[in-house]
Amino acid sequence: MNGRSGPPSRTGATLGREGESAALARILPRLGSARASLVGPGDDAAVLTAAGPIVATTDTMVHGPDFRLAWSAPFQLGWKAAATNLSDVAAMGARPTALLVALTAPQDTELAVLEELADGLRAGCEELAPGCTVVGGDLAVSPTLTIAVTALGDLDGKPAIQRSGARPGDILAIAGDVGLAGAGLSLLFARGVDAEGNPSAEAAAALRPEFDRILDAQLSPRSPIGAGLAAAEAGATSMIDISDGLVKDAGRVARASGVQFVLAPDALAPTEPGVTLDHVLYGGEDHALLATFPPGATLPSDFRRIGIALAGSGVVLDGTPLHGRGWDPYAGWDGAAG
Amino acid sequence: MNGRSGPPSRTGATLGREGESAALARILPRLGSARASLVGPGDDAAVLTAAGPIVATTDTMVHGPDFRLAWSAPFQLGWKAAATNLSDVAAMGARPTALLVALTAPQDTELAVLEELADGLRAGCEELAPGCTVVGGDLAVSPTLTIAVTALGDLDGKPAIQRSGARPGDILAIAGDVGLAGAGLSLLFARGVDAEGNPSAEAAAALRPEFDRILDAQLSPRSPIGAGLAAAEAGATSMIDISDGLVKDAGRVARASGVQFVLAPDALAPTEPGVTLDHVLYGGEDHALLATFPPGATLPSDFRRIGIALAGSGVVLDGTPLHGRGWDPYAGWDGAAG
Repeated sequence: MNGRSGPPSRTGATLGREGESAALARILPRLGSARASLVGPGDDAAVLTAAGPIVATTDTMVHGPDFRLAWSAPFQLGWKAAATNLSDVAAMGARPTALLVALTAPQDTELAVLEELADGLRAGCEELAPGCTVVGGDLAVSPTLTIAVTALGDLDGKPAIQRSGARPGDILAIAGDVGLAGAGLSLLFARGVDAEGNPSAEAAAALRPEFDRILDAQLSPRSPIGAGLAAAEAGATSMIDISDGLVKDAGRVARASGVQFVLAPDALAPTEPGVTLDHVLYGGEDHALLATFPPGATLPSDFRRIGIALAGSGVVLDGTPLHGRGWDPYAGWDGAAG
Repeated sequence: MNGRSGPPSRTGATLGREGESAALARILPRLGSARASLVGPGDDAAVLTAAGPIVATTDTMVHGPDFRLAWSAPFQLGWKAAATNLSDVAAMGARPTALLVALTAPQDTELAVLEELADGLRAGCEELAPGCTVVGGDLAVSPTLTIAVTALGDLDGKPAIQRSGARPGDILAIAGDVGLAGAGLSLLFARGVDAEGNPSAEAAAALRPEFDRILDAQLSPRSPIGAGLAAAEAGATSMIDISDGLVKDAGRVARASGVQFVLAPDALAPTEPGVTLDHVLYGGEDHALLATFPPGATLPSDFRRIGIALAGSGVVLDGTPLHGRGWDPYAGWDGAAG
């Protein structure tokens, strides 16, 4: 990926055979150094500069309910774990400074898999939030592959953008794609499977390059992290990371702010092959940023207007109140992993 | 535990049946509010005050390799998850400000179990690091119960105490118990089991009250968090949280600092029933603090002298170099959970 540590070597060495220390010795050099880091990995804790109030958030990806190894390469898992957490930092108007990663993996996990995952974490940070990378973590043996990331950010002295600040008359705007990640997952569940309906790497590969855009949106999302900072500078009154679907997350802001959002149908019409209006409204995991701006504000370049805030409550499209259906494609999860 | 939210109610409600939102609604009120908190749970990220450089660390407890439910009550799991991470913050000379908790649990986990775990997290913070509590987290369904905690701390403008600062002539000192937690786990593996050798809550209960001290040290350790701040104020030159055994962790400081530690045999003689010198030297999970102080320094009241730093390398007792055997009582873990 970055050429600085050489490609991961598939030597058959596993976490169980080599142990945690040997695994960390292979992983740590791949992670680089965060700009805010004063003391990096190797002591009891990392030490980071902070210019004032900080933000902190954590999110977990669990093998089975949250991803399938037949569909996600380790590099993509690392990238997505970084992107989803960076997006929560950006949604507060903060600049991401560091990640901490608690990784649990089965004993037979190849160290090469962990190296690729580390490469994905670093690449996601480098691409989406330059200067930020993993500054600490923990590696443990578990029956279940789990990636728990904590992301930290610096507000650089500015107030955090909360969900509660939207006011009637505000412009509702979005940065990033919406609906694509949900469409990608729908496609994988429908056509990325074998004859028995089980996730299949071969079936998923056959969907490329035709559906690259929606598959990449699902497997390695490119959250518009810089747009969060731009929104804060442009005077955004509220902001949220869209992780559970546009309607559900807009509804959260509406409730916290005590306003109603009226969506503009034209602004939401899907244009990407495979994406329906249903994906746009209810599909999750896009990690786009939804924000409100005062009337007359000049929107930052990454944002486009999709509606307006009025007095009232809920989310309305074409005169009809919409209700977030949530986003849980693995609902009623049956224990399958693949 | 604290009377503020009422006792957890064993209603049979499970994580799978109630869902994440309902579970969080029951857990969050139990966690209290951190002194450093500007924005608590419920937005994309928590917002915390920071007076300058911060420390951050993460550590995970996995059901099976790290704990057994037959031996640990949910309250104890929460307490221990807090204590072990707070101890890493304290070992940098920092004041713990906040925890973030990524919890994964099987679908059939009773919400009452999660409430008790939250109570343990809060009680551990209140007792060991007043003002600190959980400010954010994530709850996900997984086949494996896992508690990943990230702890944050504020250095209040002082430099971090690293592992690399010990100098020849420094006093080697310890705060907290050493050997007890390892003795407690040895006892559980030996006598906290049924006739087939499986962990047994009944067998473990029969070891009380005789072995309360070592069982509590293992299951709900009381790390001397305040001693970390006191050590920093007293001019400690290095510090480490003893999690993997005294010899192994002292060896890490010796290596990072380029010194040799000579241990004083008298200072290490075990006095607690069930604790051997082997437990003192090699048993892990005590989460005591090991620090060095300049020659002639007045030790903070929680610390007692156990040796001296000399030019050289390694850790020596009675003229014999010791080698950390590590601390992995679940080594060769066979997948058993219990």
